[in-house]
Amino acid sequence: MIKVNENYLKLQGSYLFSQIGKKVKEYEEENPNRQVIRLGIGDVTQPIAPAIIEALHKSVDEMGNKETFHGYAPDLGYEFLRNTIVENDFQKRGCDIYADEIFVSDGAKCDCSNIQEIFSQDNKIAVCDPVYPVYVDSNVMAGRTGEYNALTGTFSGVVYMPCTLENDFCPELPKEALDIIYLCYPNNPTGSTLTREQLQVWVDYANRVGAVIIYDAAYEAYISENHVPHSIYECKGARTCAIEMHSFSKNAGFTGMRLGYTVVPKDLKSEEGVALHSLWARRHGTKYNGAPYIVQRAGEAVYSPAGQSQIKSQVAYYMKNARVISEGLKSAGYTVTGGVNAPYIWMKTPNGMTSWKFFDALLERANVVGTPGAGFGPSGEEYFRLTAFGTYESTVEALDRIKKL
Amino acid sequence: MIKVNENYLKLQGSYLFSQIGKKVKEYEEENPNRQVIRLGIGDVTQPIAPAIIEALHKSVDEMGNKETFHGYAPDLGYEFLRNTIVENDFQKRGCDIYADEIFVSDGAKCDCSNIQEIFSQDNKIAVCDPVYPVYVDSNVMAGRTGEYNALTGTFSGVVYMPCTLENDFCPELPKEALDIIYLCYPNNPTGSTLTREQLQVWVDYANRVGAVIIYDAAYEAYISENHVPHSIYECKGARTCAIEMHSFSKNAGFTGMRLGYTVVPKDLKSEEGVALHSLWARRHGTKYNGAPYIVQRAGEAVYSPAGQSQIKSQVAYYMKNARVISEGLKSAGYTVTGGVNAPYIWMKTPNGMTSWKFFDALLERANVVGTPGAGFGPSGEEYFRLTAFGTYESTVEALDRIKKL
Repeated sequence: MIKVNENYLKLQGSYLFSQIGKKVKEYEEENPNRQVIRLGIGDVTQPIAPAIIEALHKSVDEMGNKETFHGYAPDLGYEFLRNTIVENDFQKRGCDIYADEIFVSDGAKCDCSNIQEIFSQDNKIAVCDPVYPVYVDSNVMAGRTGEYNALTGTFSGVVYMPCTLENDFCPELPKEALDIIYLCYPNNPTGSTLTREQLQVWVDYANRVGAVIIYDAAYEAYISENHVPHSIYECKGARTCAIEMHSFSKNAGFTGMRLGYTVVPKDLKSEEGVALHSLWARRHGTKYNGAPYIVQRAGEAVYSPAGQSQIKSQVAYYMKNARVISEGLKSAGYTVTGGVNAPYIWMKTPNGMTSWKFFDALLERANVVGTPGAGFGPSGEEYFRLTAFGTYESTVEALDRIKKL
Repeated sequence: MIKVNENYLKLQGSYLFSQIGKKVKEYEEENPNRQVIRLGIGDVTQPIAPAIIEALHKSVDEMGNKETFHGYAPDLGYEFLRNTIVENDFQKRGCDIYADEIFVSDGAKCDCSNIQEIFSQDNKIAVCDPVYPVYVDSNVMAGRTGEYNALTGTFSGVVYMPCTLENDFCPELPKEALDIIYLCYPNNPTGSTLTREQLQVWVDYANRVGAVIIYDAAYEAYISENHVPHSIYECKGARTCAIEMHSFSKNAGFTGMRLGYTVVPKDLKSEEGVALHSLWARRHGTKYNGAPYIVQRAGEAVYSPAGQSQIKSQVAYYMKNARVISEGLKSAGYTVTGGVNAPYIWMKTPNGMTSWKFFDALLERANVVGTPGAGFGPSGEEYFRLTAFGTYESTVEALDRIKKL
């Protein structure tokens, strides 16, 4: 008789954003006249930039023509895209990364959740707390996290690294032995960053203890300060300890287009001396079949001069929203971080209110949707996330409503 | 120190088609003047049909416009696509399947390889032999297959069901206790089919022993005979024992577009009473982020009257190739099956030649690429696969060369 993967039964609640979606839908059905503003999920609202649309039309025409039609993509992704990525995202920044170390995929979420498959079941993971739920949930599904403790809201097999106002949202090096460290900078959900020097400490630590850092750089396009690194490979020694994920979702509005990539340097080896690059290549070849040709051409257009200029305007648009949120909340007396190098604003709930209570209050009294900090881990309790991805008009309106509370 | 998933080290060689690609590339580099014809990998050559191209252009324009832009897709896929799928692929055929049982994805290969994640590590799998390598490899990676025996070419924890000329490529019901049965009909690689009555025997068996059938229907568009079912849900009782995968790759030429779907009926439960639908939904929501909006719109256009008429011509084009191959090989004295309800032609190698030797001979002497049967499992030895996905001209030319050997 078939039995299920019992690790799935250890997952807590439904996936955070599905749960929020359900709550909002119920509220809207009960209150059809209220205009709900969504600053919860990190979905973009600006359309795909003209240079990218042009590349899409061109490649669609290629697909309709016998001479220029494209079938299965190469396992790692098309060279035209991998070369462009390497040149713009790495070589221009002095990072020692090569085109055959880039694995094009359908998004950073998939890569972040799939990467753990190449590691031993026994490896111990560490995550920041609060954290993007996918890192933990994918390891829960794989049976790497031990049992859930409902009192503490943590899994026994996971090392949680608290990031709170007290430590300026910068995690301390763990004292426990561990193998896989998930870091996301600019951070989701707190909007915080590490300086190049702070990140170097992590790279040195990982090399010293033989751990691998899974570095999620999905929000690097929002970095505005020079001391904040865009890639972990700006740090010395990262080639032997770090895997990095990038996304086209937030810099170019590809949430509905699906494109990302993962860097696995060939120098990165396990204790047994196995190159992680070869394992990830094997997984990519066996369990995946590439991003659509037309989407990879769209990705290439992101790096064109016109594409770059257009997506920079979009990022600026969202960062203007971030300032509206940040300044609005501060003027209303809230304690706020983030929003400078990231599209996320992280606020303390008033008077120690739980984050789900604050979620309900904000939905019901201001008709604004945010994300409860507790959804990101126990240290997210009494915090709340707002995102800058709305339209300018709705963001201004949302803050007006919040200020009136 | 990081350790790798040691199950990956049990994988045999590289992924079959990567290995073939490498061999062909080497041959072409050494023999730049030879015109190599590829009838190996199942990649299509006809461009995307005009009705689908039109839908793509339209949806690309939507993505470039603020009012019609689409961000993250719904977890299960857009309703417009799921409704169309259910109506055309199931309800029209009298199959009792509903839109909320359809999970849209980026292809049947990904779904086939990911589906095993929701099952217990202890579940025992059965596969046809020969078999599409992804079913076995994804289970090897998950640690469900035991040790590899190089003498027999099999994994100790897998039940292999031989499909050869002797049993007319129809597997016998296994005598061993098992939990997960992979069936692919029309079959890759043998091109064989089961009648509705033969498939009913499997459904009854699975319900009797509490097993689940993973039914890969990627080639159903090539069925030309009435007694061959297009879906396992044409059989009574399949809702309690079967998961089915469909692909847009071969019927509509989407190998470079990436679209497929998986059906998980809500009646399908594990021994513990857990609905597999809820587990797959959780996996979909946590480890995946949907197929691109524009590709889902392209999928919808596949079912439009113009789309249907155009893709039927493409299927007919490939099936004309299948006849060229099948009749050509027969006239050259080979023993041949398949090619009637499937784009695959399965032939016996001459004089008990090993399939990789035949691969080399065909590449070097006729400059034609096929797929060695041994790559699909031990019972594939002394067999060889040719595909009908080339152009008509190159297929005719390839057969002329083979006949001259």
